[in-house]
Amino acid sequence: MVTRSVDMRSDTVTKPTETMRAAMAIAEVDDDILGLDPTAAQLEAEMARIMGKEAALFVASGTMANLISVLTHCQIRGSEVILGEYSHIVIYENGGISTIGGVHPRTVKNNEDGTMDIDLIEKAIRDPNLAICCPTTRLICLENSNAHSGGRCLSVEYTDKVGELAKKHGLMLHIDGSRIFNASVALGVPVHRLAQAADSVTACLSKGLGAPAGTIIAGSKSFISKARILRKTLGGGIRQVGILCAAGLVALQENVAKLENDHKNAKILAKEISKIKGLKVDAATVETNIVFVEVSKDSSITERELLEMLKARGVYVSQPGPRKIRLVLHHQISEDDVHYAVSCFQKVINGSQLEMLAIE
Amino acid sequence: MVTRSVDMRSDTVTKPTETMRAAMAIAEVDDDILGLDPTAAQLEAEMARIMGKEAALFVASGTMANLISVLTHCQIRGSEVILGEYSHIVIYENGGISTIGGVHPRTVKNNEDGTMDIDLIEKAIRDPNLAICCPTTRLICLENSNAHSGGRCLSVEYTDKVGELAKKHGLMLHIDGSRIFNASVALGVPVHRLAQAADSVTACLSKGLGAPAGTIIAGSKSFISKARILRKTLGGGIRQVGILCAAGLVALQENVAKLENDHKNAKILAKEISKIKGLKVDAATVETNIVFVEVSKDSSITERELLEMLKARGVYVSQPGPRKIRLVLHHQISEDDVHYAVSCFQKVINGSQLEMLAIE
Amino acid sequence: MVTRSVDMRSDTVTKPTETMRAAMAIAEVDDDILGLDPTAAQLEAEMARIMGKEAALFVASGTMANLISVLTHCQIRGSEVILGEYSHIVIYENGGISTIGGVHPRTVKNNEDGTMDIDLIEKAIRDPNLAICCPTTRLICLENSNAHSGGRCLSVEYTDKVGELAKKHGLMLHIDGSRIFNASVALGVPVHRLAQAADSVTACLSKGLGAPAGTIIAGSKSFISKARILRKTLGGGIRQVGILCAAGLVALQENVAKLENDHKNAKILAKEISKIKGLKVDAATVETNIVFVEVSKDSSITERELLEMLKARGVYVSQPGPRKIRLVLHHQISEDDVHYAVSCFQKVINGSQLEMLAIE
Amino acid sequence: MVTRSVDMRSDTVTKPTETMRAAMAIAEVDDDILGLDPTAAQLEAEMARIMGKEAALFVASGTMANLISVLTHCQIRGSEVILGEYSHIVIYENGGISTIGGVHPRTVKNNEDGTMDIDLIEKAIRDPNLAICCPTTRLICLENSNAHSGGRCLSVEYTDKVGELAKKHGLMLHIDGSRIFNASVALGVPVHRLAQAADSVTACLSKGLGAPAGTIIAGSKSFISKARILRKTLGGGIRQVGILCAAGLVALQENVAKLENDHKNAKILAKEISKIKGLKVDAATVETNIVFVEVSKDSSITERELLEMLKARGVYVSQPGPRKIRLVLHHQISEDDVHYAVSCFQKVINGSQLEMLAIE
Repeated sequence: MVTRSVDMRSDTVTKPTETMRAAMAIAEVDDDILGLDPTAAQLEAEMARIMGKEAALFVASGTMANLISVLTHCQIRGSEVILGEYSHIVIYENGGISTIGGVHPRTVKNNEDGTMDIDLIEKAIRDPNLAICCPTTRLICLENSNAHSGGRCLSVEYTDKVGELAKKHGLMLHIDGSRIFNASVALGVPVHRLAQAADSVTACLSKGLGAPAGTIIAGSKSFISKARILRKTLGGGIRQVGILCAAGLVALQENVAKLENDHKNAKILAKEISKIKGLKVDAATVETNIVFVEVSKDSSITERELLEMLKARGVYVSQPGPRKIRLVLHHQISEDDVHYAVSCFQKVINGSQLEMLAIE
Repeated sequence: MVTRSVDMRSDTVTKPTETMRAAMAIAEVDDDILGLDPTAAQLEAEMARIMGKEAALFVASGTMANLISVLTHCQIRGSEVILGEYSHIVIYENGGISTIGGVHPRTVKNNEDGTMDIDLIEKAIRDPNLAICCPTTRLICLENSNAHSGGRCLSVEYTDKVGELAKKHGLMLHIDGSRIFNASVALGVPVHRLAQAADSVTACLSKGLGAPAGTIIAGSKSFISKARILRKTLGGGIRQVGILCAAGLVALQENVAKLENDHKNAKILAKEISKIKGLKVDAATVETNIVFVEVSKDSSITERELLEMLKARGVYVSQPGPRKIRLVLHHQISEDDVHYAVSCFQKVINGSQLEMLAIE
Repeated sequence: MVTRSVDMRSDTVTKPTETMRAAMAIAEVDDDILGLDPTAAQLEAEMARIMGKEAALFVASGTMANLISVLTHCQIRGSEVILGEYSHIVIYENGGISTIGGVHPRTVKNNEDGTMDIDLIEKAIRDPNLAICCPTTRLICLENSNAHSGGRCLSVEYTDKVGELAKKHGLMLHIDGSRIFNASVALGVPVHRLAQAADSVTACLSKGLGAPAGTIIAGSKSFISKARILRKTLGGGIRQVGILCAAGLVALQENVAKLENDHKNAKILAKEISKIKGLKVDAATVETNIVFVEVSKDSSITERELLEMLKARGVYVSQPGPRKIRLVLHHQISEDDVHYAVSCFQKVINGSQLEMLAIE
Repeated sequence: MVTRSVDMRSDTVTKPTETMRAAMAIAEVDDDILGLDPTAAQLEAEMARIMGKEAALFVASGTMANLISVLTHCQIRGSEVILGEYSHIVIYENGGISTIGGVHPRTVKNNEDGTMDIDLIEKAIRDPNLAICCPTTRLICLENSNAHSGGRCLSVEYTDKVGELAKKHGLMLHIDGSRIFNASVALGVPVHRLAQAADSVTACLSKGLGAPAGTIIAGSKSFISKARILRKTLGGGIRQVGILCAAGLVALQENVAKLENDHKNAKILAKEISKIKGLKVDAATVETNIVFVEVSKDSSITERELLEMLKARGVYVSQPGPRKIRLVLHHQISEDDVHYAVSCFQKVINGSQLEMLAIE
């Protein structure tokens, strides 16, 4: 019988807190498609301020936020966007920018820290003199923090440099900031500063911040006005959306401060798991709330078995690739949960080694 | 000072009831993109049953429901869909089936009752022998009740006939059932019977049923499984969506029974307004909760002025076209509200006539 | 044994003349994708002059010309084009503007003479205030002469009026001028005058003008420059295209003058066939080189049988719809051929009537 | 005064030979969109045989051939194609597979010999279990010979291995064989063997084979039948296309045998240029008719100046990137032309060095 559950599959699995539920229950709402919902307006204004942009828009998900942003920048047929080969947009968003939006992606090598080399980005920009046979580069996308690299953060310096490159070539810069609050806390830099060089930036309310749903897109007034139309085209307009926005406002007030603790817990988790034989964690790369664990090739146990045996003990993790396990911390996982999870890892690994010994 | 508000711009403007708010506040939720949200699952199962289909899917809006349905039926490049020239999909959904989905619409004349002549539909179906120069017809769309015709209902007989035609030609049939509960109540026919001939059907929870958000798509298991993927592509996956689904479940329990009253109120409204000089209503066409008012060409007042003067008295209506005013009833408009609204119409029209006399 | 062939399926079936073949054999050519082909440049300059536009572009077909024109005017996602419900683009071009280009078509009723009522066009233009839920109208398309109406011509007055309407609403006007030379000859108005109100116009070299291939798009320099890029995207760039252009130049010199004769032959054909019992032709509608024949419902013969029996006598016609036969004249059909074709119609119809008498 | 011209910008610049011109002048033709052109049919049958496939289709260009092939394999919305990061489709075809076709490209690192590592291809194939957030891999593309690597050839062994991988995962394999005849001659392997593992393969008639226009797509009957419809959608149907096909038939008869000589000339060119100070050629990589020259960083002359000065001597070359010059051999460049070109390179480089000395 499982009596305890530690769900580290993602920071999207959090449950709304009592404060959020109370806020949703009394939220003042109206028809947002008619532009009348006061709570949506309040959240959007607040987020525009935090993100340092003129305007903001609430959308249903991070995927929708990126899709709308890329398509709004690339509204002319024949556009190309430059992005990291392992960016979330390329890997986990169904290829929607092409299959729904007709935008051609040009991918650039991602370094281990989530950056792309500036000169590689520049090399990927199309020569306008070759317009007869090349699409037109219109946009560069960054991701901060970068999911595929284990939540590592892009510095202000790096982002600013990419921003300068974009300006030099007349390109737009979009930052997929699903976890930009994590980056902000880890770097000790306010969100608006991290987003300063960007023409558009997103931030998820339903990841580290723990709201039940929603992502914010921020940008210029004219950009957000186009984005609002595209949101409607996609069917992403939600009538009395203030219900969800009310929880988002609470998330901002209550949960930003908790991110530091998630990062601390991630470091503890990384350190403890790295001590277990057969498991490998590069603790130095744990900058925010994500921990990647490598299951050694000669391990006594496959990662699939490991997942199942952890699950049997109430510890939920995900497997993003072969021999790789991903753990994501969030405000509903305590330091005590972390120690419990580590103990489960130990038991499972040791148990399987004992079994192996028994077999031998 | 306005002390009273009667908002008849749409049935989408309703506020969540206390029961809905309570349900949302205690809803059991989980990450629905991982397929774990129990309240979403409960609502989808309940709606599949009501709509007589194998499976159902909650999406953010009616526009998304139609977009996903049409695109899922027309997943092969080169598809054409037959629909009414004044269908909601053609007129009010941003042309998304083409601009986002690459589906070619073929429109057929809408009769005043919202039907399209069966032989005109058949004539619009492409000859497969002409595939070299014609797109491939894959889908027919109906809309029940039909918004543009003032909420008139398609009978079971009509829908079944279109269904037979579709089968005969190997086509799919989709019903945009944003207000299918209104049609069901008005016709005295269960929703599942109205949807029987259809391969997919939608129903809005946020229109007559009064939930804050959401539309349901229902269809076969394999259809819904493809629709779920496309929902994700569009960014329409919502994490702890059970919050919104909880309100939807309450809407089903509490508000279906109230639709009959809305229809009664619509008839009263139609009858009373038709008595006012300069305004014209065809009361015989008021079958559900929508009333179209024509402002006579020789009226003393433009429809724009009429709107403003009603608004000053707290009565909100919309203007779908020249000389046309639309009023939509819903469960938050009482018979007393209707009489108040009528009295405002009278005062505004009479007042403007007095003014005209004064001028003369 | 068939000793004679009169092919009236289309004016696209002509064979290149000896002069064309000679011109192709000696054409000076170079790589046109590198912009070097002198014969292509010569034809494009000549056509720009004739069509009264700054620049012109040779493309492989009328379908490509329309596709490129519509997409170039509608390069921004979310565009809508207004066109006739029976326009060639809607009916015979695979729905490519949507399925390849993502443009939403808005169709307007075609009158019997190929026009659309000006007020219906204006009514179809989207209200920019409704941009949140409507696509953006960007283009109106006309077709001159109009194929579906049997080759009837749009007058300068009509085209100019549509042009004024377009300007008033900030829209572009495109004319599908596949057979604009026929219209020009029939109306006695130069092509450039017919195209004056248009932002872009096409003209087929391979229909009435008898070249083996090619259609010209004409418009402003900036429009043609974008069209050239899109032609490359579609794969429509052709290396030593001067071979085909050389034939096009001959077509211009030799065959424009022959169109008048085609129109005369069409009138003879219409008049003679209308005398045959069971066949109906509205001779008054034959303005150019197309003749539609209606096979009476109570005819002794189906149109399918009629086609087969004519074919057996070397007379080729096409069947665009139930009970409808289409005959297209061109410079390789002489007046004598017309009389031969009429005699075949007579024999086939009389023969079948004799058979019927025999059966009775 | 330039008295001699050696055009090595591409093998697309060849002029039709006298035999081709004669063949075009007498070609038997008919309306190919109606499927009646006998010369097109003959060329397509002949090419199907040579390429070892059931059927073949003539299209206007290599870009159209690739666009049609990729889109026909990926006719379902949500498709992804795996291809080399430097493949012609990704770099030089306007991104049409996305911007026109809505297909999501997934690029894999190209090795210097034009191959992609088999395990990298396999890693790029999407896990069908992740269909909720990933596009569906449907196609792998190879390019043989590979333009970006300087015309290097993919071996039968390599292609077969990729074919096996495709089969294992239920994917299609397309070979962009613009220069597959060059590969065939260089490897001493018949074209049909090189294409054996592929579901579709293209071959350009207007590159090494010297025809004025056209590329062939070959594949199964059902594939070609779909491709023919898509060709029409793109506007790529050409009426009396037999004119161009007649030249293609001559190209097959006369010019395949000349490719060996082009390769020999390329090797001579590479060897001689590599002796010039400041220019670098890796002669070992010259397998077919393309030679890449690197202009040393410390060269006395920029590549832009070099191009201009060669041009002044009638030697035309292209510049595909910084410090890189490309020379392409074809049947209208003789060994003598090669020596002339080399002498021009020498004069230009030496001259500029003399100038530099003078300056110093």
